[in-house]
Amino acid sequence: MKIYTSKCRSVLITGANRGLGLQMVRQLLDSQNRPQKIIATARDPAAAKELQELSKSHPNVHVLPLDVTSDSSVDAAAQSVESIVGSDGLNCLINNAAINLASELDTVTRDAMMKTYESNTVAPLFVTKAFLPLLRRAAAEGSGMGIQRAAVINVSSLLGSVQLNWGEGASYKSYAYRASKSALNMVTRCLAVDLEAEKILCVALHPGWVRTDMGGPTAPLSPEESISSVLSVISGLTEKHHGGYVDYTGKSLPW
Amino acid sequence: MKIYTSKCRSVLITGANRGLGLQMVRQLLDSQNRPQKIIATARDPAAAKELQELSKSHPNVHVLPLDVTSDSSVDAAAQSVESIVGSDGLNCLINNAAINLASELDTVTRDAMMKTYESNTVAPLFVTKAFLPLLRRAAAEGSGMGIQRAAVINVSSLLGSVQLNWGEGASYKSYAYRASKSALNMVTRCLAVDLEAEKILCVALHPGWVRTDMGGPTAPLSPEESISSVLSVISGLTEKHHGGYVDYTGKSLPW
Ligand SMILES: NC(=O)c1ccc[n+]([C@@H]2O[C@H](COP(=O)([O-])OP(=O)(O)OC[C@H]3O[C@@H](n4cnc5c(N)ncnc54)[C@H](OP(=O)(O)O)[C@@H]3O)[C@@H](O)[C@H]2O)c1
Ligand SMILES: NC(=O)c1ccc[n+]([C@@H]2O[C@H](COP(=O)([O-])OP(=O)(O)OC[C@H]3O[C@@H](n4cnc5c(N)ncnc54)[C@H](OP(=O)(O)O)[C@@H]3O)[C@@H](O)[C@H]2O)c1
Repeated sequence: MKIYTSKCRSVLITGANRGLGLQMVRQLLDSQNRPQKIIATARDPAAAKELQELSKSHPNVHVLPLDVTSDSSVDAAAQSVESIVGSDGLNCLINNAAINLASELDTVTRDAMMKTYESNTVAPLFVTKAFLPLLRRAAAEGSGMGIQRAAVINVSSLLGSVQLNWGEGASYKSYAYRASKSALNMVTRCLAVDLEAEKILCVALHPGWVRTDMGGPTAPLSPEESISSVLSVISGLTEKHHGGYVDYTGKSLPW
Repeated sequence: MKIYTSKCRSVLITGANRGLGLQMVRQLLDSQNRPQKIIATARDPAAAKELQELSKSHPNVHVLPLDVTSDSSVDAAAQSVESIVGSDGLNCLINNAAINLASELDTVTRDAMMKTYESNTVAPLFVTKAFLPLLRRAAAEGSGMGIQRAAVINVSSLLGSVQLNWGEGASYKSYAYRASKSALNMVTRCLAVDLEAEKILCVALHPGWVRTDMGGPTAPLSPEESISSVLSVISGLTEKHHGGYVDYTGKSLPW
């Protein structure tokens, strides 16, 4: 008989070579409830110096190649993860990788719209589909919902809120990014509907405006500040949050 | 000096060869406030028998080719429309064309996601951009906001509401279609923000569940019932509705 603790045993993060994804790996390693297996994926792991360093000093960090827009890369990663997590399955999938191409009314192109959708909306759906057998394995036993059992965390953005895109909230302009995150919110909600019976928690999460390559140097939050809050919110998720849209402080956002 | 009436002088409809688009043309012709110029566009006008008949008997119906996913087709249509509407510009653009590919969790493909986004979300944005010079011309004079001045009506769907995709509201499943319409709602809101100062009204509109090829034979509304309500809602739009999401009864929907 397996013994289930309240801990998340395994977590997988996409886009873990820099920015918020890398910061998640660092702070998960520092956390009291450190997962036994941290699967840090990157499009090009050979170039991911910090990740390689971390995995040398921490045997529970597994670095894997994963380009979220490529079916063959996603399938290969799912196979590797199966051999890492085995019969325990995967407890927590964090769809973090994303792009943000400049796209105001005058500059937006069809290509920017399509590429952003491919990376930010379609990829999280197909990464989730590929890891579903392992999430289902983890969800099969246990009680309640949460990352101790099985969860899909889609890293969304406040900029995906249609409601809040008005007045002051509308000052940041990007057709491609905003539309992709609104659509990701819908995909998250569809997944929540479809995976509820199997007790796989699905949530859209806004990490705050953070000083990364994407957030830029004038953002109010450091990656440390964002990710401390994000990890605390993630570890407190229950069935109450299933299908929801929350920010890094745990507050519910309007769609 | 031009004399402006409270009437919409010109309207352009995409996907007007069948379904709700064709019904709009029919009922606009029957309406008391019949626009002087009804520009009915279709991907393949030669195959659009009903439209051709209508335009033979009604000289104010102009039938033009327009594949909303093709830049060259969109540009050519914008040029033709310029010569039809001239210095009056275009009062009302109705982005109606859309597709709906079956896409449940088990059957959805990356390709279905991308194609649906291209037609249902990206196309309305680029059709709007192409007709902006003509909408701006119409918006330049007059007062208030509405279809008597300049308006972009994006035909969305209740299925694009993330909020309502829960419980009973979640029974219809389609990742590709739902995500595309949520994203269209965001695009509509971005356009509303960007075009407010120029007094171009932008609205997302749900026409109801209707018996067309897309809606299927079990839908509760006939095309006549839907479009009578839709045209009455559209003609009553004011600045109050700008940036909003309304259904065919005029009710506001949650994003
Ligand atoms: N920073 C903010 O203020 C902010 C605010 C709201 C939401 N977010 C969201 O938070 C998440 C992380 O953002 P960030 O600030 O860390 O962005 P970032 O610094 O630009 O990092 C983006 C990450 O995504 C990866 N990525 C992009 N496309 C990929 C692909 N096809 N396959 C694999 N990895 C890919 C990048 O890998 P490469 O190095 O290979 O490009 C990189 O690791 C994103 O979902 C973003 O939308 C950020
Ligand atoms: N029917 C409903 O219950 C319902 C409910 C909610 C929302 N809606 C929305 O209402 C609108 C009209 O739907 P409908 O029921 O009339 O659908 P429909 O009967 O399937 O007709 C779709 C129309 O869109 C056109 N179209 C598709 N792709 C195109 C492209 N690339 N270029 C030009 N035209 C294109 C089709 O032209 P072809 O003949 O060339 O394919 C056809 O004229 C859509 O936006 C739909 O999402 C419908």
